[in-house]
Amino acid sequence: MAKDDQEKAGTPRYPYFTEENSEQVVNARMTADTDPRLREIMTILVKHMHAAVKEIKPSHDEWLKGIEFLTRIGHMCTDWRQEFILLSDTLGVSMLVDAINHHRPAGTTPNTILGPFHVDHAPHYDNGANICLDGKGEPMVVRGRVLDEQGAPVAGATLDVWQTNDDGFYDVQQKGLQPDWNLRGVFTSDAEGQYWLRTVKPRFYPIPDDGPVGQMLAALGRHPNRAAHIHFIVTAPKFDPVITHIFSPDCQYLAEDAVFGVKNELIGELQRITDPEVAARLGVAAPAWLVEWDFVLAPQTTGSVEKAERV
Amino acid sequence: MAKDDQEKAGTPRYPYFTEENSEQVVNARMTADTDPRLREIMTILVKHMHAAVKEIKPSHDEWLKGIEFLTRIGHMCTDWRQEFILLSDTLGVSMLVDAINHHRPAGTTPNTILGPFHVDHAPHYDNGANICLDGKGEPMVVRGRVLDEQGAPVAGATLDVWQTNDDGFYDVQQKGLQPDWNLRGVFTSDAEGQYWLRTVKPRFYPIPDDGPVGQMLAALGRHPNRAAHIHFIVTAPKFDPVITHIFSPDCQYLAEDAVFGVKNELIGELQRITDPEVAARLGVAAPAWLVEWDFVLAPQTTGSVEKAERV
Repeated sequence: MAKDDQEKAGTPRYPYFTEENSEQVVNARMTADTDPRLREIMTILVKHMHAAVKEIKPSHDEWLKGIEFLTRIGHMCTDWRQEFILLSDTLGVSMLVDAINHHRPAGTTPNTILGPFHVDHAPHYDNGANICLDGKGEPMVVRGRVLDEQGAPVAGATLDVWQTNDDGFYDVQQKGLQPDWNLRGVFTSDAEGQYWLRTVKPRFYPIPDDGPVGQMLAALGRHPNRAAHIHFIVTAPKFDPVITHIFSPDCQYLAEDAVFGVKNELIGELQRITDPEVAARLGVAAPAWLVEWDFVLAPQTTGSVEKAERV
Repeated sequence: MAKDDQEKAGTPRYPYFTEENSEQVVNARMTADTDPRLREIMTILVKHMHAAVKEIKPSHDEWLKGIEFLTRIGHMCTDWRQEFILLSDTLGVSMLVDAINHHRPAGTTPNTILGPFHVDHAPHYDNGANICLDGKGEPMVVRGRVLDEQGAPVAGATLDVWQTNDDGFYDVQQKGLQPDWNLRGVFTSDAEGQYWLRTVKPRFYPIPDDGPVGQMLAALGRHPNRAAHIHFIVTAPKFDPVITHIFSPDCQYLAEDAVFGVKNELIGELQRITDPEVAARLGVAAPAWLVEWDFVLAPQTTGSVEKAERV
């Protein structure tokens, strides 16, 4: 061992790393010209990482299992599969980031998770079009209005809609098996803010669970299913874009959506249409489903232009 | 929007996810038969992850940059490159895990980081052997004793030694360029607990910094250099195995080792040998360096058998 009274070169600018000072020593290593926001983010990340390690007290083998888990997740990621986003989704991080970035006035339609299956440039349809191109599932009409906070109609709003087919897959998951653009479309609200479209009743479906995140869910006793929903992105000039869902009220997974996307305000009401004449007026054959759903937009705030461009 | 008075199916067993209850909702999803240790680990991880997100308030783009950073790290990992371990090392997590798992009595030799360059089954040498096979660098003799806490010699202890060559690379990083097993060897303490070996003065070297972790260090204004050191693993029956270093006291990076491995108690003392006769008795040519270094072993505790097997 070194003698205590020995003169040492390389006099430390700060104390050597110990269990007690670990967070401070690591964060002190950043230099003065580090980007201030990066400095802030790293400081908080290191603080919580070290606090978590001190609380977990992982054995070397547990630490190594963590390293291996992250490595398997990384190796699962390709251009068409993002396993780290699935990890973020299933641990509630994605919904938390969404919530933090979308504080909206009460009474306006809240955001929920975007998910990995949105595709840009879906076909534009006139109101009333049927986006179900494979003929599977129970016919459903969705109609309503796009409104501002005062209840005034928002004309010319764009409604980008997508959902799985009745087998529980998005078209992009079954290229060649489903018609291209099956269950996707872009609609526009009319002068009274009204929109309407024909589709099928959505069903629950599993997130991709054949990778390490699926293994994690299994180890935690969790299923991979998302509660049945239809995706919408609603945009209009001078309003905050809304990335949202309508959830089916009768889905068995409503209370345990695998990615925590359900909000009370986003659960729809299903009306059963059995009268053939009523169904015919809606453009469908009885029996069918009807969902009446209004989107209430908040005014554009600072930063929401960037969000709109992102979408 | 859904009517508030509407009857909903799928009555939640717990409240829907909100910014406020996010940690509780995610952790409540684990089922009762989840392995208790896994439950404990996940509960703590989710708590700190959500707390970090709430404190950082990442924009969607910042969150995506984080996802992309982790993905690049995963893609950098191969059988011979572990970028997640480099991340753990450079953020002090590896040293913290090591510290938590190796609380030893005062006066015994502390652990430090193992690093990725240990290789099993290095050649066994008699005391006095020279492990420097490429002839580069300044000759150095390391000698001392392996002792127990009472200062009694520990005979038959195994000392597994490795270091970089004078160009700053381990043999395994330069297969074909360095002799096999250059600067690696296994020695055994004699009846008086003594060991001695010939090598070269260690020098600082960078951790692999051509990947995302190197980019992170650059963004934080940090260099990738490890303070100059020699690695040792010292094992003996009935004692706690020690994974440790001797650091060179004159290294310019002592105070800012890239992986936070330096401890005050691990900084050696360098003696300059200029007298040709003294050097000859040490088996080297003057000028040369001498480091006298004792390892003090702690008694084996519960769990250290597993550690010994791991090493």
